[in-house]
Amino acid sequence: MGFGTVLVANRGEIAIRVMRTCRELGIRTVAVHSTADRDSSHVHAADAAVQIGPGAPRKSYLSAPAVVEAALRTGADAVHPGYGFLSEDPDFAEICAENGLTFIGPRPEVLARLGDKAVARSLMTDAGLPVLPGSPGTVDSAAEASDLASRIGYPLIIKAAAGGGGRGMTVVRNASDLLPAYRQTRATAQAVFGDNRVYMERYCDSARHIEVQVLADGHGTVLHLGERDCSVQRRHQKLVEESPGPGLHPQLRSAMARAAVRGARAIGYTGAGTFEFLVHDEGFSFMEMNCRIQVEHPVTEAVYGVDLVAEQIRVASGEALRMSQEDLVPRGVAVECRVNAEDPARDFAPAPGTLAEFVPPGGPFVRVDTHGRAGWKVPPQYDSLLAKVVCWAPERDEALDRMDRALAEFRIAGPGVHTTIPLLREIVADPVFRAGRHITSFLDTRG
Amino acid sequence: MGFGTVLVANRGEIAIRVMRTCRELGIRTVAVHSTADRDSSHVHAADAAVQIGPGAPRKSYLSAPAVVEAALRTGADAVHPGYGFLSEDPDFAEICAENGLTFIGPRPEVLARLGDKAVARSLMTDAGLPVLPGSPGTVDSAAEASDLASRIGYPLIIKAAAGGGGRGMTVVRNASDLLPAYRQTRATAQAVFGDNRVYMERYCDSARHIEVQVLADGHGTVLHLGERDCSVQRRHQKLVEESPGPGLHPQLRSAMARAAVRGARAIGYTGAGTFEFLVHDEGFSFMEMNCRIQVEHPVTEAVYGVDLVAEQIRVASGEALRMSQEDLVPRGVAVECRVNAEDPARDFAPAPGTLAEFVPPGGPFVRVDTHGRAGWKVPPQYDSLLAKVVCWAPERDEALDRMDRALAEFRIAGPGVHTTIPLLREIVADPVFRAGRHITSFLDTRG
Repeated sequence: MGFGTVLVANRGEIAIRVMRTCRELGIRTVAVHSTADRDSSHVHAADAAVQIGPGAPRKSYLSAPAVVEAALRTGADAVHPGYGFLSEDPDFAEICAENGLTFIGPRPEVLARLGDKAVARSLMTDAGLPVLPGSPGTVDSAAEASDLASRIGYPLIIKAAAGGGGRGMTVVRNASDLLPAYRQTRATAQAVFGDNRVYMERYCDSARHIEVQVLADGHGTVLHLGERDCSVQRRHQKLVEESPGPGLHPQLRSAMARAAVRGARAIGYTGAGTFEFLVHDEGFSFMEMNCRIQVEHPVTEAVYGVDLVAEQIRVASGEALRMSQEDLVPRGVAVECRVNAEDPARDFAPAPGTLAEFVPPGGPFVRVDTHGRAGWKVPPQYDSLLAKVVCWAPERDEALDRMDRALAEFRIAGPGVHTTIPLLREIVADPVFRAGRHITSFLDTRG
Repeated sequence: MGFGTVLVANRGEIAIRVMRTCRELGIRTVAVHSTADRDSSHVHAADAAVQIGPGAPRKSYLSAPAVVEAALRTGADAVHPGYGFLSEDPDFAEICAENGLTFIGPRPEVLARLGDKAVARSLMTDAGLPVLPGSPGTVDSAAEASDLASRIGYPLIIKAAAGGGGRGMTVVRNASDLLPAYRQTRATAQAVFGDNRVYMERYCDSARHIEVQVLADGHGTVLHLGERDCSVQRRHQKLVEESPGPGLHPQLRSAMARAAVRGARAIGYTGAGTFEFLVHDEGFSFMEMNCRIQVEHPVTEAVYGVDLVAEQIRVASGEALRMSQEDLVPRGVAVECRVNAEDPARDFAPAPGTLAEFVPPGGPFVRVDTHGRAGWKVPPQYDSLLAKVVCWAPERDEALDRMDRALAEFRIAGPGVHTTIPLLREIVADPVFRAGRHITSFLDTRG
């Protein structure tokens, strides 16, 4: 392995997950943390830890200079950004390179192009991927918005060009709502991403969110690891994911996989990446590409028997992928449930609190990735993800039965602590979900 | 699923493991426990629990009447015996049947025949399985012992006919030690198993312990799930197991698998069972059959993607196995390490104590089966197994690197608590073990 020390520029479960693989590869790990995370599990999981700023993300986990300084000070060769925070920031990748640090992810220019969702849409159109009818680029005036909307038709969706992760998106159902929605989305985009540019696309009410995992090295090999169905969402936030996508027609499945490989090759992608598609009545359409490890990557790992983080690290160190497409044979079905610290009774507001009791489930074919631990006070500054429960089985129904058992077994309790576990168990038991007939509106319309 | 309620006639990790599968199959579970186990995890894991006696195993977990009464009282349809205790007791299986309870295991007469190791040896010889030179049946006098020994040659091993689990065995290296060893082994057999009959076999100093997992239903299907290498033993007690056996010649591997299937078919075996073989310079020889789920079954589950306990339950309820031999395709390598509460500094004496801290490892391709939990006082009456750490990877070296990471991550501490973790990490790093060149004397001669 080329790297002696890797700094993990993240927190929570993903930081621990990356460190586990580093340790297995014989790589020393460095954690960074805010003052609010001083006692967080990822700090204890690393060989060394550097406090890089206060609780506010902008001044710590989102501060490229603070992270780079910590890496240089601890002798790191490379930086793994996890997901969120700086993981898709081309400037950060650039600053790493300028300081002699390997950024574990695609090249900065690839990040820049794919980070602009309007540009990505246009690049993938050029590469021959199907996209929904929409604006050719960003929509920079109200007049342009009106003009395009009449051509695209309703419903349509306005999205922040700098967006991602389900934020900065507005669905518009008729012409009278267009201009207020346009202005509101621009304002939100400016506030959340510091960039008010937006683009527009036809919106599908009845669609599935299917994404394809790719893996590419710097030697011309591009592989796919099948798809994940992430249609169970609450307000565009994924809650339950699985691989493979239930009931997908084999031809559609392989067409999407081929499209993803073609797209990755067209832009010179390297590392692990995800093509997000909508599957609708007329086929599938490219939505966006995520240039990092995804929250839901464990379902793909379980089905393909591949450690995706290890492959990211190997590719970043210059190695060629050791497997071929023929080696990647899927087995069975894996499902992931996101256990968030949220209170369903208070409209799913974050409910951090102190984890007086915290005992994750175990047993055959159950994996739990978590940074939770008994006695830990969950800091309120960060996202509410507390644990990911991943269950595998030869058949989907068995995987879901296993999931219900695992969720029932999970003991999380403490003053002020509420989680999504009751909701997740309802979903796992829901006849529509059990039949694999759920679409992206499943949760929001379930009432 | 045919059963509404299953009573699990065991304790510790295996009781919890069986209950997890029951829950996934929609079966209600009943725990039994001694007074010493009142607060043990398996009691909390069940839907109902019955206290069946005091701490001494003979008066609780080994008491067939107490277990059957608990089953009848709680409306159980079937009893899962786990491993050890009553799991291979033909009388218990018979009493279950007499009381209308399904014993989840082979038929009583099969248990009786295979439980007598001298009879099993003779049955398997008739079925065409290779055995080491030895006594045709039990050796019932000192004169017979002397006579047979001169024909078998030295070294030889004297074994209790009613034995198993590595107890009641004596290796004899020359004629002068024969008669004292014969008398001593008979006395031990009487004391431990209540049966002083012994038999004799050639002993191999340089051998590997390889066992084949079989699965058979009541409809004529007998399948194998490859082999496990269990050569890492301390005083005949397994400590590290893996699947597949490293470096086994494909022809030898398939010959053993075929032999196991033939043997199981010859005796009308049903359920999950294990053929234990010695692999030596001249090939392989049948040693004994274990008529229950094994401690080390998770490595086979990880490699074959099969829940063996679920298959045991299905077969016991009368179902036909749903897979064929062609469906059983092994993938990668799985290794199990037994974390025992023992003190290496005091010759591995049990070191129960109180688990002030207990945080098992996690992450990709790591499974931990355990009944341990923080704050629990380990009762001294029972075996010292505290947890099984199972790691899977595409290649053996990766699985071992993962194991080292997982063992390093395992946090167990408390007053008086010592474990085998440091020894296990030494084994995992040992060049002989890494090369897969270890034989059964590996640990005892390692010094």
